[in-house]
Amino acid sequence: MSDIKALFEGKVKGELVFAPFIDKKYLSDFIGYYQGKADVYVKPVDDEDVQTVMKIAYANKLNVTIRGAGTNLAGSTIPDGGVVLDMSGMNKILKLDEDTLTITVEPGVILKDLIKYVEDRGYLYAPDPAEKGASIGGNVSTNAGGMRAVKYGVTRNYVLGLDLVKVDGTKISLGSKTYKYSSGLNLQQLVVGSEGTLGVITKITLKLLPLPEFTLNTVIAFDSLSQGIKNVNKIFKSHLDPTAIEFVEKKVIAYGEKFLNKEFPCQRAKSYLIVALDGDKDGVYERFEKLKQVVTDNGAIDVIPLDDPAVAKEVWEIRGAIARAVNASGPWEPIDTVVPLDKITTFVDYVNSLIEQGYPRMVAFGHAGDGNVHLCVLKDDIPDDKWRDILNDTMEKLYGKAYELGGLVSGEHGVGKGKRKYFIENTDPLERELMINVKKSFDEFNLLNPHNGYAK
Amino acid sequence: MSDIKALFEGKVKGELVFAPFIDKKYLSDFIGYYQGKADVYVKPVDDEDVQTVMKIAYANKLNVTIRGAGTNLAGSTIPDGGVVLDMSGMNKILKLDEDTLTITVEPGVILKDLIKYVEDRGYLYAPDPAEKGASIGGNVSTNAGGMRAVKYGVTRNYVLGLDLVKVDGTKISLGSKTYKYSSGLNLQQLVVGSEGTLGVITKITLKLLPLPEFTLNTVIAFDSLSQGIKNVNKIFKSHLDPTAIEFVEKKVIAYGEKFLNKEFPCQRAKSYLIVALDGDKDGVYERFEKLKQVVTDNGAIDVIPLDDPAVAKEVWEIRGAIARAVNASGPWEPIDTVVPLDKITTFVDYVNSLIEQGYPRMVAFGHAGDGNVHLCVLKDDIPDDKWRDILNDTMEKLYGKAYELGGLVSGEHGVGKGKRKYFIENTDPLERELMINVKKSFDEFNLLNPHNGYAK
Repeated sequence: MSDIKALFEGKVKGELVFAPFIDKKYLSDFIGYYQGKADVYVKPVDDEDVQTVMKIAYANKLNVTIRGAGTNLAGSTIPDGGVVLDMSGMNKILKLDEDTLTITVEPGVILKDLIKYVEDRGYLYAPDPAEKGASIGGNVSTNAGGMRAVKYGVTRNYVLGLDLVKVDGTKISLGSKTYKYSSGLNLQQLVVGSEGTLGVITKITLKLLPLPEFTLNTVIAFDSLSQGIKNVNKIFKSHLDPTAIEFVEKKVIAYGEKFLNKEFPCQRAKSYLIVALDGDKDGVYERFEKLKQVVTDNGAIDVIPLDDPAVAKEVWEIRGAIARAVNASGPWEPIDTVVPLDKITTFVDYVNSLIEQGYPRMVAFGHAGDGNVHLCVLKDDIPDDKWRDILNDTMEKLYGKAYELGGLVSGEHGVGKGKRKYFIENTDPLERELMINVKKSFDEFNLLNPHNGYAK
Repeated sequence: MSDIKALFEGKVKGELVFAPFIDKKYLSDFIGYYQGKADVYVKPVDDEDVQTVMKIAYANKLNVTIRGAGTNLAGSTIPDGGVVLDMSGMNKILKLDEDTLTITVEPGVILKDLIKYVEDRGYLYAPDPAEKGASIGGNVSTNAGGMRAVKYGVTRNYVLGLDLVKVDGTKISLGSKTYKYSSGLNLQQLVVGSEGTLGVITKITLKLLPLPEFTLNTVIAFDSLSQGIKNVNKIFKSHLDPTAIEFVEKKVIAYGEKFLNKEFPCQRAKSYLIVALDGDKDGVYERFEKLKQVVTDNGAIDVIPLDDPAVAKEVWEIRGAIARAVNASGPWEPIDTVVPLDKITTFVDYVNSLIEQGYPRMVAFGHAGDGNVHLCVLKDDIPDDKWRDILNDTMEKLYGKAYELGGLVSGEHGVGKGKRKYFIENTDPLERELMINVKKSFDEFNLLNPHNGYAK
């Protein structure tokens, strides 16, 4: 360790901590079940710091694992020796450019801070990942999605440019503030979703939209999941322009209900869609009336607009409590497969059939408007010594099914270390080889977030 | 040549032509000013054919230049010896999947055919490149943009998956029909806009939207370009949700007027915006009234909704005639720089100042809603022996200015061979080196569209 100390001490302006004094939370992801190891923790304060760290790491062939706010669910931030590079200290909003409708930020800016900053000034940062405590750098690194992807797309669609410190410490500025790009390979888009494997993002320029005047959420009750999901396509085709279409089964909402001892609307339902509409208030209510007609014609048993603040509050409380109920039940594994729009029911039915066969308890909900199914696999009272095997067996089944249906291992969380095995099993080796070769062109010695995602 | 003949003859099902019998049009781009050379022209009929061609080319280190409908304006399809691979024969629409709102096509499908096919069935293929005779494979290869990019984004945003035959003849399927993707490097997005440098696209899955019920175009007249452009930001911020915002100066419309001997509305204007709104008819007209108010409050001198078929017909005829007027004037060079939203006026003023200084006649118009400025540089009576130098000098100035303003060489046409010099001059060598390295990971020997765009 003394060698490592000598390499870094006095070289960086930011915080430096050496093993064995590195806080355990920096050796894991949000779940915290798996712990990695690291020799040094660095929290750079500016680009120069990042460049210094990378130059040292590169010269000494040290692995570097990049982290932001630490909300990752896929094990991307579990280090594998070497350096933990904590970007959370670089969290300045650099420039809101109202003339180009863009904002330039450092990667450590927290999503909820960005949202507040732009909304206070009349703008919308359109991607809407559920985890508002995540950093923007993390959002870019996983191509985070969220509820509003149905109407507005995902993080990728809002990244215009970024600064990237390469593994050798050199820095390049990719992209610009322009809305179109056909000027060579789009490397900024390649970096989006690359989970820290290609370089260290130190600055990001994002596209903004004007803030919609009004948003209305509506809970729609059905007597089966499949009946609800069938409505998604009809909602699209009826020109209702939904911002979000979420699905959740009654038995899943029940976790939240039990946790809070409160009741969700329409207790006789088996499944719900939550549909958001945005725009000018009159137009939204016109579309709501049309929505009501469409879903009622297609099997909805109740339609509840959340314009009564008391009802809305209760609905979101119960919904929000699902995750807390899951968390309170002990260890769990988050899964975020994405399947084609028409395969959601087939996939969730398969999940339910596994539970019936004695697989772990699983809680499914997610983004019906884009096929992104979130699953929590619960450990419950499965003994520690059996949990990994049982979880592995469950994931083999789930991901096998997802790929069989034309789906993918992850819609928005990333592959990380947690889904790596299943990603590799289900990906054409030629495609992965290409990814590894592309990484080599950025990072010859595989130092950045190695053994992560597709990486070797 | 006999060697080349022996390599290919009897191996492929599609058309084969050897030099010197290759039609000249296959040795150039749409402009046709520069001619390349090639040893063999192949028009494959299926994936197997493409794989066969690539295996032969790879084994014999032959350059391969890929082309589609031949509408490229940047010299991307000018071959550099070896093989011209004409994908226009692979033009089948493979599957409209109404359950996932996707369509899967071969790359040779012509844009206008795709548009008709999906619109007849109630769907919108949202990107709207002006050249409707282009192939979809070409659109993907240049990340083609178009008018509707303001609301709907560009080709990139609609490419969910594609099949790619690699330089060695192996084939991989990238992406899927899912709307989200966070499962390793997004190679399908990397291929978008790569101008045929990474592989041969043989199949593309595109996302569709429901066809809007109604679209209204509006001509808005101003007494200066800058006054018009100032309105773009105001239109965005007024929640008018424009589909397209185009700009054109009166002196540019005059080319079309003169060509057709017809008059554009509001003759006293110096500049126009054309704004499209789509949605349900009542809502569109409500937004039109709001638009009228906003632009009238901000200097518009006339607002003409194109809902009178006779007026609409005349407006589009005159506008469409600009390009024909330019074409009829003799050789010209198309430029499609993209600048940040707020730099359009500065850039166009610069263009006008160059003309005043004695540079060639230039005609500027384009996409005000996304900063994409189209320029035609006209040869007029500049002597042949001076044209290349003068054009080069003009382009040096124009691209230098575009980059100075935070812009890029191309928003939607690509770099090709035509803009390569200016792209290289204005791009950080480290960034280009990365691009070249990424290409190497797909195409070790630089056989695919070499010396094209960023490539070596």
